[in-house]
Amino acid sequence: MKTHPTRTLGIAVAQLGGINLDDTRQSVVNRLIEMLKEAHGRGANLIVFPELALTTFFPRYWMDEKEAQARFFEQSMPNPAVQPLFDEARKRKMAFYLGYAELTPEGTPYNSAILVNEKGEIVGKYRKIHLPGHDDHKKDAPFQHLEKKFFRVGDKTFGVWEAMGSNIGMCLCNDRRWSETWRVMALQNAEVIVLGYNTPSQNIHWPEPVHLRMHHHLITLQASAYQNSVWAAAAAKCGSEDGHHMIGGSVIVAPTGEIVAQASTEEDEVITVKADLALADAFRKNVFNFESHRRPELYGLITQRTGRGTPL
Amino acid sequence: MKTHPTRTLGIAVAQLGGINLDDTRQSVVNRLIEMLKEAHGRGANLIVFPELALTTFFPRYWMDEKEAQARFFEQSMPNPAVQPLFDEARKRKMAFYLGYAELTPEGTPYNSAILVNEKGEIVGKYRKIHLPGHDDHKKDAPFQHLEKKFFRVGDKTFGVWEAMGSNIGMCLCNDRRWSETWRVMALQNAEVIVLGYNTPSQNIHWPEPVHLRMHHHLITLQASAYQNSVWAAAAAKCGSEDGHHMIGGSVIVAPTGEIVAQASTEEDEVITVKADLALADAFRKNVFNFESHRRPELYGLITQRTGRGTPL
Repeated sequence: MKTHPTRTLGIAVAQLGGINLDDTRQSVVNRLIEMLKEAHGRGANLIVFPELALTTFFPRYWMDEKEAQARFFEQSMPNPAVQPLFDEARKRKMAFYLGYAELTPEGTPYNSAILVNEKGEIVGKYRKIHLPGHDDHKKDAPFQHLEKKFFRVGDKTFGVWEAMGSNIGMCLCNDRRWSETWRVMALQNAEVIVLGYNTPSQNIHWPEPVHLRMHHHLITLQASAYQNSVWAAAAAKCGSEDGHHMIGGSVIVAPTGEIVAQASTEEDEVITVKADLALADAFRKNVFNFESHRRPELYGLITQRTGRGTPL
Repeated sequence: MKTHPTRTLGIAVAQLGGINLDDTRQSVVNRLIEMLKEAHGRGANLIVFPELALTTFFPRYWMDEKEAQARFFEQSMPNPAVQPLFDEARKRKMAFYLGYAELTPEGTPYNSAILVNEKGEIVGKYRKIHLPGHDDHKKDAPFQHLEKKFFRVGDKTFGVWEAMGSNIGMCLCNDRRWSETWRVMALQNAEVIVLGYNTPSQNIHWPEPVHLRMHHHLITLQASAYQNSVWAAAAAKCGSEDGHHMIGGSVIVAPTGEIVAQASTEEDEVITVKADLALADAFRKNVFNFESHRRPELYGLITQRTGRGTPL
């Protein structure tokens, strides 16, 4: 069924298996480069790497902020360790998304992602807004989730940037569970929304059945891609990091809400689709014609309230 | 796995098969009463009826507004035709949600729903905000979707009301596809969100594969229930109305995003669950702790823009 002219983008998602504490940046960048080469060979123009793709998911460990910053944060980008990835991508005329811990020149720590275009230029940076977890030491928990300790909340809202002739929006991990994330980017005419994630298999807050973690990830991606008429590409860091297991399930979802590619391992794995961006047009023109159907004058509570309150 | 005290509500969804043009209000109300009795026998305290539950889905027919109002709208509620449903519900101490076409004393037409508590009192009224379709005559289409012609946009935002000791939010049909709908009610501490729908199997705007219609319905309900930590109960009018087919798929979804009951016919059918409202607590306290994690100061675009625009 083709009722529209096609406009294709080769999208790859590079799922990463675990990165252990003693793995070097260089060894990780080599893994990213191998997957970039594979994605290129399979026709991809854009490759999506995970959140905190250069290191282990260190917010699981209690430590001093200064120690975390010294070991796990990047003070410039690209830096010498990451430069070979930029070089390889530029050589192959590929764009990429990369998540990493950013320490600004002013010393502010963010959980960040960049979009690098096919010329090797950083065209966009996103700093994570929905930081999950806590900032205190949960001594009885099997591990920590210290994003609220190690990172500041992003200083700008969600953005959309151009790469490979497409409008690309970025978010990170827990952001994907919040409908506001997707809507703010759809309102900027995003065509593709890319994200990386590190999702522990075990919920430290309550005994949530493990299968629900994957279920929530998938239904959220599917509904959000559909409701915002975008392609969605999500890259996991997964498997075991020094004994700490995280879910895989890296996926590419069409604007129909259908999963069109999904990783089947918990290791380094590339998935690709030849995405027809114009597939979203029928949705944007009809059921999700924002201009015709949205009623912002009745949505005020979304920005007026933070927490749950009494009925109006 | 029970890690919390239970707080149960027996929820029933009454799916309706088709209502033809020449069916009387009385015959329809008798069908509703039969399903209410069944739901009561199966332990339900609240029953959800469809959108426009008293008539055929008349926005599919081109006609004059005055003719539509005379044939298909209710000028008071309860009126004599519907009174027996109110009586039967009060007798059985059941609350219910009912969708119908409302003509106000001032002559304003709305696509409305009411929440009636266990004492037979109308405690809440919702007037549909996201009216789909068009207001012009699409002469080449197999049928019309004239909600924008026959109804005005609801004059108030989404609300939450109390019935059976629970906080219940209401919406209608197409509203369920819009994330703002759910969020505005979740911010008012909704525990259960109820809705009726009439979803044609055929999309008149483009040749959408029919199976996607059901897929979109289900992923939207699942993700929205999960992301807002609510139970969701959705009642279809379905099957064939004078040859026009609509999807069934009435469902009850838990705050886990799991479908816990689903209709298996396209006819009058009751589904029920014994819902533990406290199942949502773990989600509200942790991953969807709005007070801790939401960042309304970065969501401004949601109320500042109606349609898609350029990147910020």
